[in-house]
Amino acid sequence: MSSTSPDQTRSIVVLGAGVIGLTTALVLQETGDYKVTILASKLPTDPKSIHYTSHWAGAHHVISVSNEFQARLEKETFEVMWRMSAPDGGAEHCFLRAPQKEYYLVPQADPDILSVYPNFKKLPEDVFKTIPGVLSAVSLTALNINTPIYLPYLMSRFLAAGGQVVRANVQHIQQVVEGGVSVFSGGSVRPGSVDAIVNCTGLGARCLGGVEDSEMYPQRGQTVIIYAPWIKEGRSLVAKEGSRTYIIPRRGGNLVLGGTRVADDWYPVPRPETKVDILQRALDFYPEIAPPNIRAVRKPTIDDLIPLIVDEGCGLRPSRKGGIRLETEWMGVPVIHNYGHGGYGFQTSWGSATAALELVKEALKK
Amino acid sequence: MSSTSPDQTRSIVVLGAGVIGLTTALVLQETGDYKVTILASKLPTDPKSIHYTSHWAGAHHVISVSNEFQARLEKETFEVMWRMSAPDGGAEHCFLRAPQKEYYLVPQADPDILSVYPNFKKLPEDVFKTIPGVLSAVSLTALNINTPIYLPYLMSRFLAAGGQVVRANVQHIQQVVEGGVSVFSGGSVRPGSVDAIVNCTGLGARCLGGVEDSEMYPQRGQTVIIYAPWIKEGRSLVAKEGSRTYIIPRRGGNLVLGGTRVADDWYPVPRPETKVDILQRALDFYPEIAPPNIRAVRKPTIDDLIPLIVDEGCGLRPSRKGGIRLETEWMGVPVIHNYGHGGYGFQTSWGSATAALELVKEALKK
Amino acid sequence: MSSTSPDQTRSIVVLGAGVIGLTTALVLQETGDYKVTILASKLPTDPKSIHYTSHWAGAHHVISVSNEFQARLEKETFEVMWRMSAPDGGAEHCFLRAPQKEYYLVPQADPDILSVYPNFKKLPEDVFKTIPGVLSAVSLTALNINTPIYLPYLMSRFLAAGGQVVRANVQHIQQVVEGGVSVFSGGSVRPGSVDAIVNCTGLGARCLGGVEDSEMYPQRGQTVIIYAPWIKEGRSLVAKEGSRTYIIPRRGGNLVLGGTRVADDWYPVPRPETKVDILQRALDFYPEIAPPNIRAVRKPTIDDLIPLIVDEGCGLRPSRKGGIRLETEWMGVPVIHNYGHGGYGFQTSWGSATAALELVKEALKK
Amino acid sequence: MSSTSPDQTRSIVVLGAGVIGLTTALVLQETGDYKVTILASKLPTDPKSIHYTSHWAGAHHVISVSNEFQARLEKETFEVMWRMSAPDGGAEHCFLRAPQKEYYLVPQADPDILSVYPNFKKLPEDVFKTIPGVLSAVSLTALNINTPIYLPYLMSRFLAAGGQVVRANVQHIQQVVEGGVSVFSGGSVRPGSVDAIVNCTGLGARCLGGVEDSEMYPQRGQTVIIYAPWIKEGRSLVAKEGSRTYIIPRRGGNLVLGGTRVADDWYPVPRPETKVDILQRALDFYPEIAPPNIRAVRKPTIDDLIPLIVDEGCGLRPSRKGGIRLETEWMGVPVIHNYGHGGYGFQTSWGSATAALELVKEALKK
Ligand SMILES: Cc1cc2nc3c(=O)[nH]c(=O)nc-3n(C[C@H](O)[C@H](O)[C@H](O)COP(=O)(O)OP(=O)(O)OC[C@H]3O[C@@H](n4cnc5c(N)ncnc54)[C@H](O)[C@@H]3O)c2cc1C
Ligand SMILES: Cc1cc2nc3c(=O)[nH]c(=O)nc-3n(C[C@H](O)[C@H](O)[C@H](O)COP(=O)(O)OP(=O)(O)OC[C@H]3O[C@@H](n4cnc5c(N)ncnc54)[C@H](O)[C@@H]3O)c2cc1C
Ligand SMILES: Cc1cc2nc3c(=O)[nH]c(=O)nc-3n(C[C@H](O)[C@H](O)[C@H](O)COP(=O)(O)OP(=O)(O)OC[C@H]3O[C@@H](n4cnc5c(N)ncnc54)[C@H](O)[C@@H]3O)c2cc1C
Ligand SMILES: Cc1cc2nc3c(=O)[nH]c(=O)nc-3n(C[C@H](O)[C@H](O)[C@H](O)COP(=O)(O)OP(=O)(O)OC[C@H]3O[C@@H](n4cnc5c(N)ncnc54)[C@H](O)[C@@H]3O)c2cc1C
Repeated sequence: MSSTSPDQTRSIVVLGAGVIGLTTALVLQETGDYKVTILASKLPTDPKSIHYTSHWAGAHHVISVSNEFQARLEKETFEVMWRMSAPDGGAEHCFLRAPQKEYYLVPQADPDILSVYPNFKKLPEDVFKTIPGVLSAVSLTALNINTPIYLPYLMSRFLAAGGQVVRANVQHIQQVVEGGVSVFSGGSVRPGSVDAIVNCTGLGARCLGGVEDSEMYPQRGQTVIIYAPWIKEGRSLVAKEGSRTYIIPRRGGNLVLGGTRVADDWYPVPRPETKVDILQRALDFYPEIAPPNIRAVRKPTIDDLIPLIVDEGCGLRPSRKGGIRLETEWMGVPVIHNYGHGGYGFQTSWGSATAALELVKEALKK
Repeated sequence: MSSTSPDQTRSIVVLGAGVIGLTTALVLQETGDYKVTILASKLPTDPKSIHYTSHWAGAHHVISVSNEFQARLEKETFEVMWRMSAPDGGAEHCFLRAPQKEYYLVPQADPDILSVYPNFKKLPEDVFKTIPGVLSAVSLTALNINTPIYLPYLMSRFLAAGGQVVRANVQHIQQVVEGGVSVFSGGSVRPGSVDAIVNCTGLGARCLGGVEDSEMYPQRGQTVIIYAPWIKEGRSLVAKEGSRTYIIPRRGGNLVLGGTRVADDWYPVPRPETKVDILQRALDFYPEIAPPNIRAVRKPTIDDLIPLIVDEGCGLRPSRKGGIRLETEWMGVPVIHNYGHGGYGFQTSWGSATAALELVKEALKK
Repeated sequence: MSSTSPDQTRSIVVLGAGVIGLTTALVLQETGDYKVTILASKLPTDPKSIHYTSHWAGAHHVISVSNEFQARLEKETFEVMWRMSAPDGGAEHCFLRAPQKEYYLVPQADPDILSVYPNFKKLPEDVFKTIPGVLSAVSLTALNINTPIYLPYLMSRFLAAGGQVVRANVQHIQQVVEGGVSVFSGGSVRPGSVDAIVNCTGLGARCLGGVEDSEMYPQRGQTVIIYAPWIKEGRSLVAKEGSRTYIIPRRGGNLVLGGTRVADDWYPVPRPETKVDILQRALDFYPEIAPPNIRAVRKPTIDDLIPLIVDEGCGLRPSRKGGIRLETEWMGVPVIHNYGHGGYGFQTSWGSATAALELVKEALKK
Repeated sequence: MSSTSPDQTRSIVVLGAGVIGLTTALVLQETGDYKVTILASKLPTDPKSIHYTSHWAGAHHVISVSNEFQARLEKETFEVMWRMSAPDGGAEHCFLRAPQKEYYLVPQADPDILSVYPNFKKLPEDVFKTIPGVLSAVSLTALNINTPIYLPYLMSRFLAAGGQVVRANVQHIQQVVEGGVSVFSGGSVRPGSVDAIVNCTGLGARCLGGVEDSEMYPQRGQTVIIYAPWIKEGRSLVAKEGSRTYIIPRRGGNLVLGGTRVADDWYPVPRPETKVDILQRALDFYPEIAPPNIRAVRKPTIDDLIPLIVDEGCGLRPSRKGGIRLETEWMGVPVIHNYGHGGYGFQTSWGSATAALELVKEALKK
């Protein structure tokens, strides 16, 4: 079923404007086949808040689990992002390609999991023996994403492709099914029917009427951002539950220091004691983050990092017991779910968006 | 030349996030030489309001006065926008390149003023003789700007280039000079000094402490937007005081019908009698805007337009007796003024922004 | 019994600023024994929205069910409101004491249920026989509450008694337990521990983390407000499911015309067809609402009501399968629940608040 | 000219909801002769901000200049407030009647200026000789106003009397003259004509279109609030330009420490160095404000005050070169100006409101 006149273009509503909603909306809009509207209560142009996780991500693209489905999404995403981050890729300034070292505190089931990255190399023992508990280590070239810049970039590209954005706090999917977008726009959008809905509400899926997915829960992560332009390399210390201590460099000289990962912890502001703990762990693991002139004369302490602090914060990773939900449900119109990306939303974003596009296509064929 | 910022990049604050503030901030940020922050009380992602004119513009790029300075700004702007609106221009969907006819009710001092546009052509008398009072007419290809899409596009591109936006209602320039951006950010921005301020507050310049430019006054314009996707061509009826009746097509099928231009009229909501007048004038001038199926059987009336209405509203053009103010004033730091764009803010935006950039460069040399 | 607050006054956080939150906070604060802070995402000084039900209530105080517990709350509330509405009661203008007629389409289990109201009287058959289907009727003096005036009155009185209000969207009760009020105030409130929480989140209780009460559901009600100062008497037509068609007069000449009551209907804006239905039902039932000069010459139609319309809207009554929840739960600190007031929040407000106060006292004794 | 029906009640719009707007609106509404609506961009129920001065006042009622007109307003205000602050005065908790000492660093033109206050007494030299530079001193009973509580009290009383409040940022008086209140209410208020406007916009009068009074300027005042319930007495140190260092006790145990008074200083947040200066001056002048247990063992320093700090802030006193403007101007309808109360808005509020009422009465007679 196809259509040529502008009137017969299918209308799609994407709920959510985090990295998942933005990427999905963009992929749909750039096909040229749909008129896409994002409905979201928080936008990337708002101040950072606990109600919008994507602002708080580091973020880097470093695969860390070996679930086959997720691995495929991550691989697809890497390919797209690698192209975007090239000098002529259109979004070079949103990314930093940088050397990365991963230190393992636990034996790795699949020691080659990161071999997909450029310049992958296992490191000799003398490189990591100074760090207590480390069993092995690898180096590679990673992609670091400057999230507060990358997110508005996605929105810009979406708007430039003809998409529209309406701020709305949707209480129930039926509000969108019956009323379409105009219900939320205070009359400034012409009423019209909705052909499909893509649900990218992240943690909001726990509350959204008609979905209320009780498998959704937060995994809280807290970080500190410092200005340390002398650092050009990222590092993670990988424990059983994933990388707990990590340093992500950003274009421009900032470093994201992390982190934490606590399930069912909803605390909405940084805890002071956690901040101290993060600074201490980061400094122990990667002493070079302290100012070189101080390190030249004495062993630095976390007090030497305090003046470098640019920002601190915390976010609630939208985790789901059953993993990412990517499937179609019929609620009058097809509702394509695309949420539950936990700690991997950036590095699965393009893969997820493409999968959602396929589900939309299939649903609209019927 | 000195600076306290750690990386020696100069900090610039742009006041205002209308089309002038956004374009200027973007031009500055994209040089890569400055760290630009926009401070504005209203943002393009807010609902439309009388306090933010840019949302209400039609807007098209059709030069209408022959002031040399302004003409230069308009020409520069056209060149940039023409490139942006190309299929590979990066913002194609914010624009519509469409045929345009201008009908003149008064003799034209410079009949070739529009010859800079593609496909410029003087029209033979039989084309316009049916419209009462018209003395001559031309056709050309005009650029129509979908303002509610174009403005967030600019903002997002600014953010993607590394700029930041802080919402603030500034009472006096000295607040920014002394306190910088952090004063308005509730502490979420690292304090730092400001090296230059660019004042793009539009009508706000009448009130802004330290400026209080009494030459600023509003020229109120009211419009109606209808959905009429069968119309692919824009038209204006040019009287002594400029084009009063005009039809601007937008990508997607909407038409902006205008208009009015009343000096010192501050009325903040559409007047019902003016709406009727606009519909009547538009229909008399361009009967094809009525639904084709109705026109097939009878002469349409404005009642046939009512069901097509998508939106209506009014804005206060930020007019200035002396014309656009583009100059530098020293108030502790250089303050580059860029306001007073009246009814031509969109079509002078890129030219004005480039001129402001030159003033910034010059001021910071000192 | 211990407390860290310097003056030993206990700190209580009330979640929600609808009629239930405001009345409860006021009752607590006016004891003089507590330092009360309201945390709420919507306040009575905000524009009306689907996220805040209290703005949409008619409202009158006319008991309509005979559940003993609720009846007690309603009786207590009536006593307080009757005093407030007296000429020297301190809030006379928030109320209108007016004659009220109730017409029953169904047999009444307890025909004397309304005998608690002043001037209660059973009406003779000839008064109601003209209205199709009516089996019996009573008249009384009812209390009509001008909700958009009464709600800010409550908030201001709360503040005048020393309470404080902080805007916040709370995701989980634990956020308040751990962080107190200061977590939500951007630092402008002195940190301090919370001794008790009172949960008055209405429909929000369905989503609030730590509560997530799946018994909560909306009962949507739509109304139209007209200006008809010649009407001084309220009327309801009581069917099996309660009064569906009703007219509530307000001090100042407005009439609230209702209504609807549809479970699990989340539609966030008025439906045009329902508006027509409400107008028709109101006119059939109470033809005097049409302008007297029109009725003098002909039978009025709903077109005669259209020019009188002042406002229209809809709200989601916070209904609960098990009825109002008024009980204490321990979640680190005592959490006193006070939500689920369905279509009776105004007429149970003072009774509910007093009951909540007792629960707070008891909880803090421990 | 009089009217009996509710329809013919005169409509009055009061611009501004600071202490002047609230008191004036209340006085007008409580006559029962008018339907009063407040239009204001900031309300007393909002968080404190630089755009609303009244939240920042100490405030006490202590006459400090001997201008005859102002003195009359202050005397009238004192009489009303003294009654209100009585145990049965209806607003006792908004006030604290407390002993006050005034210490003069300069000779007093009228040494009996404060003799209107209860318990006025000149103090013997030995009471003040320990304070450097003091020439004389008096004691009296002063009225201290707990402004963050008193302001919402006024608003609640206004609402309870039937007044209404609409949030609006008015750009020009003509917007109100032509459009009335409904223009600003998003349609929720029925359109209607305005019979008179009372302009209580404070510093806003500098910008308000149609007024733009260039005699208006800010006198910035900064304060610190500490919790020191052991202090029951207020004190001021009166220099040439008025009382610069003062301590105002509030019911509940807080002390307002002041202050500063700098003309044309718009800085919108507290300056850290000024905070230190205020603490130091207050401690030098009135050492008893330090915790008694510390004073028992050693001389306190300002570090001992830091833990007591509850709040700090600054406000812009709406000063006017020609003094308070209380007069009628015709702009289609009568506009009664009532602004420019500088550092004396609370202590002239009731007198000003009564004077404005007289002007309204007179204007509407015509
Ligand atoms: C400290 C930290 C570090 C991280 N590091 C990485 C990393 O290195 N790499 C990586 O890939 N990932 C990382 N993540 C994870 C990543 O941030 C998330 O996976 C991702 O942001 C999830 O995006 P989202 O779009 O699903 O959700 P969100 O960003 O939370 O967006 C949800 C959107 O839905 C909207 N919404 C929700 N409910 C409603 C409703 N009812 N109505 C309207 N709108 C609604 C919201 O307003 C918002 O716009 C990290 C996360 C944290 C906290
Ligand atoms: C009906 C109509 C049709 C038009 N058609 C066209 C057209 O076809 N072509 C064309 O080129 N132009 C057109 N215009 C004119 C165009 O809209 C204006 O020239 C342009 O929008 C002006 O932009 P601006 O950025 O100067 O002002 P605005 O868009 O008003 O933006 C001002 C900004 O400054 C901020 N601000 C002001 N004061 C302060 C302060 N004190 N503190 C903080 N922030 C402050 C505001 O919040 C806002 O962000 C039209 C206008 C109207 C009304
Ligand atoms: C058309 C109609 C007519 C009615 N007529 C009557 C009548 O005549 N008489 C009568 O007694 N009743 C009537 N009602 C019912 C009455 O309106 C409701 O019972 C009452 O408003 C419920 O008040 P509430 O305080 O529980 O909820 P609400 O008014 O909805 O307030 C809930 C509050 O909780 C806050 N909140 C919720 N979740 C959170 C969170 N997570 N974090 C922070 N804040 C949160 C909200 O922001 C809001 O402040 C009517 C209702 C309707 C719709
Ligand atoms: C530190 C300090 C200490 C003080 N101590 C005392 C004291 O002890 N005793 C005393 O009597 N006084 C004292 N004052 C002075 C007192 O605070 C002021 O005189 C008083 O608050 C002025 O009130 P106002 O209503 O005129 O102005 P504001 O409180 O500033 O209110 C102005 C109102 O007008 C509204 N407004 C303005 N322009 C517009 C517009 N265009 N559209 C809509 N609304 C608009 C605003 O939103 C606001 O609601 C003190 C002041 C300070 C700063």
